[in-house]
Amino acid sequence: MPDAKTIRHQISIGEWCGTTVGRAGRHVQTGLVILPKAEAYDFLVFCQRNPQPCPLLEVTDPGCPTPQTLAPGADIRHEVGLYSVWRDGELVEEVTDIAPLWQDDFVAFFLGSSLTFLQALADAGCVSSVGVVLYKTNIMCKPAGRFAGPMVVTMQTLPAAKVARAVQVTSRFQATHGAPIHIGDPAAIGITDLAQTIGPAPPNGIPPGDVALFWACSVTPQTVAQASAIPFMITHSSGHGFVTDLKDHDLAVP
Amino acid sequence: MPDAKTIRHQISIGEWCGTTVGRAGRHVQTGLVILPKAEAYDFLVFCQRNPQPCPLLEVTDPGCPTPQTLAPGADIRHEVGLYSVWRDGELVEEVTDIAPLWQDDFVAFFLGSSLTFLQALADAGCVSSVGVVLYKTNIMCKPAGRFAGPMVVTMQTLPAAKVARAVQVTSRFQATHGAPIHIGDPAAIGITDLAQTIGPAPPNGIPPGDVALFWACSVTPQTVAQASAIPFMITHSSGHGFVTDLKDHDLAVP
Repeated sequence: MPDAKTIRHQISIGEWCGTTVGRAGRHVQTGLVILPKAEAYDFLVFCQRNPQPCPLLEVTDPGCPTPQTLAPGADIRHEVGLYSVWRDGELVEEVTDIAPLWQDDFVAFFLGSSLTFLQALADAGCVSSVGVVLYKTNIMCKPAGRFAGPMVVTMQTLPAAKVARAVQVTSRFQATHGAPIHIGDPAAIGITDLAQTIGPAPPNGIPPGDVALFWACSVTPQTVAQASAIPFMITHSSGHGFVTDLKDHDLAVP
Repeated sequence: MPDAKTIRHQISIGEWCGTTVGRAGRHVQTGLVILPKAEAYDFLVFCQRNPQPCPLLEVTDPGCPTPQTLAPGADIRHEVGLYSVWRDGELVEEVTDIAPLWQDDFVAFFLGSSLTFLQALADAGCVSSVGVVLYKTNIMCKPAGRFAGPMVVTMQTLPAAKVARAVQVTSRFQATHGAPIHIGDPAAIGITDLAQTIGPAPPNGIPPGDVALFWACSVTPQTVAQASAIPFMITHSSGHGFVTDLKDHDLAVP
């Protein structure tokens, strides 16, 4: 397992192929939201009001591309594998480097990602039968200024005997979404068609004997950008986390 | 024990005499910071960067005097027992009602207070020999915009045999400062004279056999206002918490 700095370097020079799902060990991974300073206040309040989908681990000063606490020396313009660029709520392009788009008034927000606790879950024998699948729910986030919209979740399915253990393990990781927000029937949170995922890999239903668990997801701001027609936002693309220098135990509750 | 709404009503009509220290049971109490919207962004970032002294439980929309989550229907202009008014970093007055000062651009920040966990500590047999004493430390907060300055702590002293239990109990209450930030020698965090407290009641030293424990304190923004000469800020006065509808267990980690 390369260290975080090496992973980020490989990403920045194009030597890292694909996502960071399950490939950064116990390093804390984050989602990314970049906004002009004029929109940053409302988004900060949005994060405060919605800590489950948006657990805010760091905010940069305007124009500064380095998260001083999570990854001193990193440059957020190059070190995420794939970025999504949103204009007026539409995904207009996906790019591997955002240096050409960077502005002096950009503020970067780093949101704890549930990619972080996959290793801890695996160590506890909790490995999803269907992988990690993203869905839009009918749970509305608390609005803040112009930011409003539905919560996105990750679904994993586990044998019933593993459900309690998965709750225990992830409860310790509040900073990366914490415990599930829902367990059981997908329809109860508005997921009526399991094939209607965000991103690829729709599952073949929930395996017999398995229970579905749903965690709040830091892809939520992207759905909020769509719902609220945010004029300009850059995010990570789903599955492409920012790999920080921190380990999961650095942020775990006792 | 009256309920939270009754306590707040008694405070608002002047029937509640004195502080809220140890007088609101297991209700979550908060510190209060009110700033004009123009200063609110920097303070939000300050809270994100300093979650131990500034665990932010709610932010109101500009001009709205009601914390919708913590106490629906409350009016923050009347329902704190004593307010401190700061201009250019100086404490200019203490008042029992801020309606005459209220402006449409005011944003209110509610910070979890360690007054909240005094009852849980008492239930665990952890009762400070010296009460709760406030000190300014030499620990500098992480700055954000114009907000910079030293951390304030509360000191309690306990028999050595109770120290581990006090850490365990308060670790569950991350939203109201969590575990101690220091245990032992006060001089190690810049407290060289135990008589130099913030507020009244200097202790007669640390009792023989006792150990001193220090928790981050939501009075910190007041010291930061002084250090940074913030143009205008209203806060609670030390010991006069805002009594919310929530109970401590509502915010405790598992």
